[in-house]
Parts: sequence; structure tokens; C-alpha cells
Amino acid sequence: MAEQTKLMENEVFLAYVTYSTIVLLKMMLMSSVTAYFRLTRKVFANPEDATLHATGEGVKKYVRIDEGVERVRRCHQNDLENIVPFIGIGLLYAFSSPDLFMALMHFRIFTASRIYHTIAYLTPLPQPNRGLSWMIGYGVTFSMAYTVLKNVWYL
Amino acid sequence: MAEQTKLMENEVFLAYVTYSTIVLLKMMLMSSVTAYFRLTRKVFANPEDATLHATGEGVKKYVRIDEGVERVRRCHQNDLENIVPFIGIGLLYAFSSPDLFMALMHFRIFTASRIYHTIAYLTPLPQPNRGLSWMIGYGVTFSMAYTVLKNVWYL
Amino acid sequence: MAEQTKLMENEVFLAYVTYSTIVLLKMMLMSSVTAYFRLTRKVFANPEDATLHATGEGVKKYVRIDEGVERVRRCHQNDLENIVPFIGIGLLYAFSSPDLFMALMHFRIFTASRIYHTIAYLTPLPQPNRGLSWMIGYGVTFSMAYTVLKNVWYL
Repeated sequence: MAEQTKLMENEVFLAYVTYSTIVLLKMMLMSSVTAYFRLTRKVFANPEDATLHATGEGVKKYVRIDEGVERVRRCHQNDLENIVPFIGIGLLYAFSSPDLFMALMHFRIFTASRIYHTIAYLTPLPQPNRGLSWMIGYGVTFSMAYTVLKNVWYL
Repeated sequence: MAEQTKLMENEVFLAYVTYSTIVLLKMMLMSSVTAYFRLTRKVFANPEDATLHATGEGVKKYVRIDEGVERVRRCHQNDLENIVPFIGIGLLYAFSSPDLFMALMHFRIFTASRIYHTIAYLTPLPQPNRGLSWMIGYGVTFSMAYTVLKNVWYL
Repeated sequence: MAEQTKLMENEVFLAYVTYSTIVLLKMMLMSSVTAYFRLTRKVFANPEDATLHATGEGVKKYVRIDEGVERVRRCHQNDLENIVPFIGIGLLYAFSSPDLFMALMHFRIFTASRIYHTIAYLTPLPQPNRGLSWMIGYGVTFSMAYTVLKNVWYL
């Protein structure tokens, strides 16, 4: 396992591993928040989920749309749309031998922006809190993609 | 290509490659199931998709919501929300030199839980079949993330 | 960083890095298109997003569904469902030492099919333009998955 050991001695890669795991855990947390809202507000997407509360035709009133649940789901969807490109482009960026300080700045700003984005979405904070935090994370990923394509362009 | 060869001699990495490909194929299968339901039930999301069945204003009646299609789409969305973190965290976990037996257990339980989740969602099986299978896969990914961050913490 | 350097000397991996970054950027572009449609058409998903245009109860009329916005969102969702498996399976495929010419064909056809898919979705072009471009990209990812599992099968 010589090559893993070497990869795991590279500080940029270690930082990528740490921050990627943190943002993926943050994204996964949204599933639990959705489940918590669905269970406490008794709002379900499937009839079979409501059988604890009602039987037969009675389940239908629990299968409905709740604005609180929808807000969490939109936040989760925004995570998918933004964290997935970060994980993919970030890995390629980590492989392209960037400067350690620059890499840390990219990873830290992205992670902070996504945590702030979640707080701004769920509170909700007035705009432009959410809009700006989205844009900062988006900009960081673009900046990493630019660095990757500047170093590697093999069509 | 010396380093690929070495990576491809690592049994944990080989297992990660196999199980990742299987769960990604399972996730991709949901697109085909959705397409099958849309075509057989004649339920479309876009007017241009219904032009085989009607013309002009007539297409509108084919652009509608169908509970069967929506169920497949929720299942697909749940896959995206859970399989994506597994692929990302699993790769970092495979790089962190875990014990082969432990790694195999993580990958096998996750893959089984997601296949069972799909069966439970589409049948549908009564709860808590789907809820528990979701929770098991979620727990496996958390356990891998914990192992990664225990070994690597570079902020 | 010896192993990165070696990885970055592998032409298949360089091609994977280039095409992956391009399709991920294309996917990210959908967020901007959605934001552009929401701002120009004044259609928002959250009450706090509409406060530039109205106050108090007045914001409610800006929180609505617009077919143009929904079309962009469906296109973005289709990207998530198809580009994510390509990124994951493509990485494992690049590690499995494929023939350079075959790898380039896979990456090029996938990238072209997804760009054409977006054009076909947003114009919209009559079917089967969108359906075929989706199917081609889907087939390319399946073909890569087949190559991976033919070389690696460790359960």
C-alpha cells in the first residue's frame, strides 16, 4: 500500500480529505433534519409512512406538503447541486499539486460558506445572506476548476 | 502507470471499486424505471415528450403528476442523497488504509441496505422496512466518515 | 508528491480530469441559469427572496411555480442523475488502465451528449433529440462500468 501512504503524506490531499468529509457529513445531516421535521410535524411523502398515525383512508391527510419540510428539502437539494461539484473538482484540484496555503483557503472558505448557507436557509436569515454565501461557495469551486484546467488540458 | 497498478493491487481499493460501481449502476437503473413508468403510463414532465400521443393542445393532458412515477423519483432522489456521500467518503476511507475485513463489511452492508431500500420503496413494503434500510446505509457512511476523520484531521 | 506527479503523467487520467471538470462546470452553470430565470421572471421559492419586490403579504405572489424555471430545474436534476455516475464510474475506469483511444472516445461522446442534452432541453428541441442524447450518455457510463467490473470483481 505504498502509494496510499505517499498520498496520505501529501498535506493538500489530507486537507481535501478532512474538508470533503466535513461538507459531506453536513449534507447528510439534512436527511436527518428532514426526517425530524416529517416525524414531528406528521407530514409524509408516502402513505405507508403514516400508518403509525392512521389506518385505511385516514393516512391520506398525513400525505401532504409542509412549507417547513420543503424548505429543508430545498436546502438539501442546493447542497447536492453545490457540494457534489466541490467534491469532484476538489479531488482533481488536490491532484494538480496546488500551493498548500491556496488550497487551504479554497477548502476553508467553501466549507464556511456552505455551513453559513444552511444557517441562512433554515433560520431563515434575510437576503442577501443566503445568496452571498451560495455565491462564495460557487466562486471557490469555479476558482478550483480554473486552476485544474490551467494545469491540465487534454482533450 | 506504475501507481495505478499499485492502487489496483490494494484489496480494499479493489473492493471499493466493485461495490461503488454496483451501487452507482443501481442508482442509474432508477432513470430507466422512471422512463419505463412515464412511457407505459403516458405521464410526461414536458409537452414535447407527449407529441407521440397527441398534437397541439392535446399534449397538455399527458403532462401530469402520477403517484407511481413520483414514487420512483423519490426513491431516485433518496439514492442521490445517500449514494453520493458513500462514493465520496468511501473513496477517502479506502485511502485511509482500513482493515480489509472491516472495509468489506462496510461496503457489503451499505450495498445490501440500498438494494433492500429500493425494493422496500417500490413494492412498497410496510414501514419500518424502508426506514431501517435507509438508517443502516446512513450509519455505515457515518462509520466510514468517523474512521476517516480519526485518521486524518488537517484543518 | 511523487505519486501525484506519476498520476498526472498518465494520459487517460489527464483526459478524465479535463472532461470531468468540463461536465461539472456545465452542471454548475445550471444553477446560474436558474438564478437568472428566477430574477428576471420574479419567481421565487422562498418568501425572503422576494423582499426586493414586495413587503409583508405582497411577497406571496412572487412565491410561485413558473414553467420556464421548472424546465431548467428538471434539466439540472437530470444532470445530477447522469453526471454524478459518470464522475464516479469514470474515475474508477481511469484507474483500470483502459486503452487511451477508447477512454477518449468514452469521455468525448459523454461530454458531447450532455451538452447536446442541455441544448435540447432548454430550447426545447422536438423529441427524440433529448431522449437520444440522454440515452447516449447513459450508454457510455454503462460501457465504462462494464469495463471496470470486467477488470475488477472483488466482493
